[in-house]
Amino acid sequence: MNFSMVRYVLGRLLQVQAYLLGIPLIVSFIYREPIQYKTSFLIVIILLTVIALISNGKKPENKRMTAKDGFVIVALSWILFSFFGSLPFFISGDIPSLVDAFFETSSGFSTTGSSILTDVEALSHSMLFWRSFTHLIGGMGILVFALAVLPQMDSESVYIMKAEVPGPTFGKLVSKLSSTARILYIIYISMTVMVIILLLFGGMNLFDAVLHGFGVAGTGGFGVRNGSLASYDSAYIDYVIGIGMLVFGVNFNLYYMVLIGQAKDAFKSEEFRWYLGIIFAAISMICLNLFSTYDSVSVLFRDVFFTVSSVITTTGFSTADFGTWPLFSQMILLLLMFFGGSAGSTAGGLKISRIVLMGKIVGSEVKRIAQPNRVVSIRYDNKPLDKQIKHTVANYIVVYFILFTGLLLVIGLDTPDFLSAFSSVTATFNNIGPGLGAFGPTSSYVDLSDPSKILLSFTMLAGRLEIFPMIILFLPQTWKR
Amino acid sequence: MNFSMVRYVLGRLLQVQAYLLGIPLIVSFIYREPIQYKTSFLIVIILLTVIALISNGKKPENKRMTAKDGFVIVALSWILFSFFGSLPFFISGDIPSLVDAFFETSSGFSTTGSSILTDVEALSHSMLFWRSFTHLIGGMGILVFALAVLPQMDSESVYIMKAEVPGPTFGKLVSKLSSTARILYIIYISMTVMVIILLLFGGMNLFDAVLHGFGVAGTGGFGVRNGSLASYDSAYIDYVIGIGMLVFGVNFNLYYMVLIGQAKDAFKSEEFRWYLGIIFAAISMICLNLFSTYDSVSVLFRDVFFTVSSVITTTGFSTADFGTWPLFSQMILLLLMFFGGSAGSTAGGLKISRIVLMGKIVGSEVKRIAQPNRVVSIRYDNKPLDKQIKHTVANYIVVYFILFTGLLLVIGLDTPDFLSAFSSVTATFNNIGPGLGAFGPTSSYVDLSDPSKILLSFTMLAGRLEIFPMIILFLPQTWKR
Repeated sequence: MNFSMVRYVLGRLLQVQAYLLGIPLIVSFIYREPIQYKTSFLIVIILLTVIALISNGKKPENKRMTAKDGFVIVALSWILFSFFGSLPFFISGDIPSLVDAFFETSSGFSTTGSSILTDVEALSHSMLFWRSFTHLIGGMGILVFALAVLPQMDSESVYIMKAEVPGPTFGKLVSKLSSTARILYIIYISMTVMVIILLLFGGMNLFDAVLHGFGVAGTGGFGVRNGSLASYDSAYIDYVIGIGMLVFGVNFNLYYMVLIGQAKDAFKSEEFRWYLGIIFAAISMICLNLFSTYDSVSVLFRDVFFTVSSVITTTGFSTADFGTWPLFSQMILLLLMFFGGSAGSTAGGLKISRIVLMGKIVGSEVKRIAQPNRVVSIRYDNKPLDKQIKHTVANYIVVYFILFTGLLLVIGLDTPDFLSAFSSVTATFNNIGPGLGAFGPTSSYVDLSDPSKILLSFTMLAGRLEIFPMIILFLPQTWKR
Repeated sequence: MNFSMVRYVLGRLLQVQAYLLGIPLIVSFIYREPIQYKTSFLIVIILLTVIALISNGKKPENKRMTAKDGFVIVALSWILFSFFGSLPFFISGDIPSLVDAFFETSSGFSTTGSSILTDVEALSHSMLFWRSFTHLIGGMGILVFALAVLPQMDSESVYIMKAEVPGPTFGKLVSKLSSTARILYIIYISMTVMVIILLLFGGMNLFDAVLHGFGVAGTGGFGVRNGSLASYDSAYIDYVIGIGMLVFGVNFNLYYMVLIGQAKDAFKSEEFRWYLGIIFAAISMICLNLFSTYDSVSVLFRDVFFTVSSVITTTGFSTADFGTWPLFSQMILLLLMFFGGSAGSTAGGLKISRIVLMGKIVGSEVKRIAQPNRVVSIRYDNKPLDKQIKHTVANYIVVYFILFTGLLLVIGLDTPDFLSAFSSVTATFNNIGPGLGAFGPTSSYVDLSDPSKILLSFTMLAGRLEIFPMIILFLPQTWKR
């Protein structure tokens, strides 16, 4: 491993975090908050700057990075961002336990939205802002952001971007990686601003609108009110956020294609069509299943649309308590939690493209077994599927479920029942947020033991980074010189 | 598809079933049962003979079979055996619903042991005998049995045996397939007789000993008493059955190797070593987890040993109600339910060899991702792993989980809660028997709707046949000429 390069890149990233912490500091001034909030941000900014200066003191001579280095940098930077990002909560006293603060911040950066807070409204404005701001940063990616603002990193960064951008394949939009990152971030920020403006039109105040905008953009799900979105009780807001989440669950490359006038090709994307089809099918099935329990069709549709959108994009906002819905509807939602959004979006889960590819692989396997001598080829996006991707997808899903099972076993030592254990791993590993049972939308993760909270924090980060960076980080052979 | 060959082979198999039904008929005479029991067996025997005569009237000219034909024959023969096997229960009136009788018989042949009976002891001796006898037949395989007794089928049968014998690979013991089948059945029957004799030594009466012997041999789990094995309350019987189940969960090829003097090689089998290791690990972890709740270490060990043995071999006998154990122990058991026994044994589940191979594939995938340019090879049983098997194993596991999820969704329409839905699919698909929640060891599957019972019947058969025969049977293109 190229240790000096890893140290150097991490140092630069921590410097970026120091800048980012300046924004909640400004919020703290705007709202004239007590001094402890301002100092807690300042302390961390100074700390990060000092660490960055030390790390960046000597430029590494050998700038070559391997895939392994890329994975290690990605995993470490997300862990460090979560750790240093949790310090303001802890120092200010808004979250008195450091483990809780780390859980909350990992949940933020990984755009999960699981919370240990029982009273969100007790937090100060600046802390609430920082909490939701982590969704915005984590959604598109910490390193993608760094690439966008630190263009001189370009040449060595292809492995980093590969490791951070979710999905089975990775395509550069333009030849220069930093330009790709910048284009993605411009689209991302513009769409976020649009959501915020639409929420303002719905009568939301600026602060709530901005924070919900961050939550939608990152498909994170941290709310501002104790009652989540139900407390606004506005069909307009529900639809803005419902549609907004779906928009951020689409591969961002498609938006770029639309921007450069290839809208037709964008719509031909197989993943996009399946995404829409699955959403349509899920809404229909759940509406049918719930039909007799609702008086008004429009309220039924609004609740189901919002819930499906929130679950498939792994955001986790809630307007209706789907824990009380019939088992069939709950299981459809559970399935969507594993599906997740599209590759290259801010959503978590296995990603629609993997699900579609998996379906095709299974279909071809059945054909191959029935007729061993026939050659069966798979097409995806109208091209023959690369063999390597085929195996990578199958293996990813198996790794995913093995890790899932291991986590379930360990969490089982600390949870009261199977549903709570299963849903807590599902909700954190897929970056959704609230689970069911003891971790339902109306409760929090606060009652878990500290080791379980730390485990789930890493689970959230592993889910956001699609597992491998986290596994590679913990392999002993990674650390051999 | 070679329709006339399929018809011909099925006809011969149904003739075999007619002979097999003669045995419970004899039991009925021995116990001087009322006339309706004798007639119900006789009616079915005559019916099967007539059908067999019609099917076998004309020998097919083209005897060539493809893999597809093999799968179709295997799937159809198990469905037909379950259907015709259920008729005596129905005609005699011991199980008044035909759907219930079909469920019970599918459960028997697939060696699942799930039951719709709430009062087992109400059944006549001949019906109880037939019920457990299906375990014995289903354990080693209907077609393997037919191959053993109908040697002239040899040349065309390699695909049949491949489709019926569980596990990722298939090896003939000797060059002639019918000899392989006969060797397997001789080992199988001898070991069954041994278990029966040992149970007789424990004071069990002959009838109970024989039926439990069948249940152990097929790793099925149908009991004879309402209280299952707890009603005998004998440590000796618990250990005979506990060890017996483990013995039948081992690949039968290993016993053949021991017989021909290659015991050393047999013990070197990687699957066998993992099988022992997993059992040891599971017993240790559960004993530790339960330690404080038991007064006596020997009772603790006896309960845990028996339960682990019953679950990993997917038998489903119970002496302790593990539904009351702590969540961690329950989850270990749940995991073992998916693991199942060894390939080429009578146990269900994914099979230890697949789990081990999967672990190795995942390990090599992690290495490949960390170092894309290094060639990583996998060794199994001290030989480099065939690439095709590698992909087949990964794809099988994915097919398995996709089907599992689909079944879960459909069963969810008819079950009260997630645990009941999840455990009913787990218990039937893995051929275990009792589930948890509404389908725990002390209750039955009788309250499900008829469509759900039929679905789970097919689930049990699909689990026993390792999915593909059942999928291929239901593909429309299979039925094109």
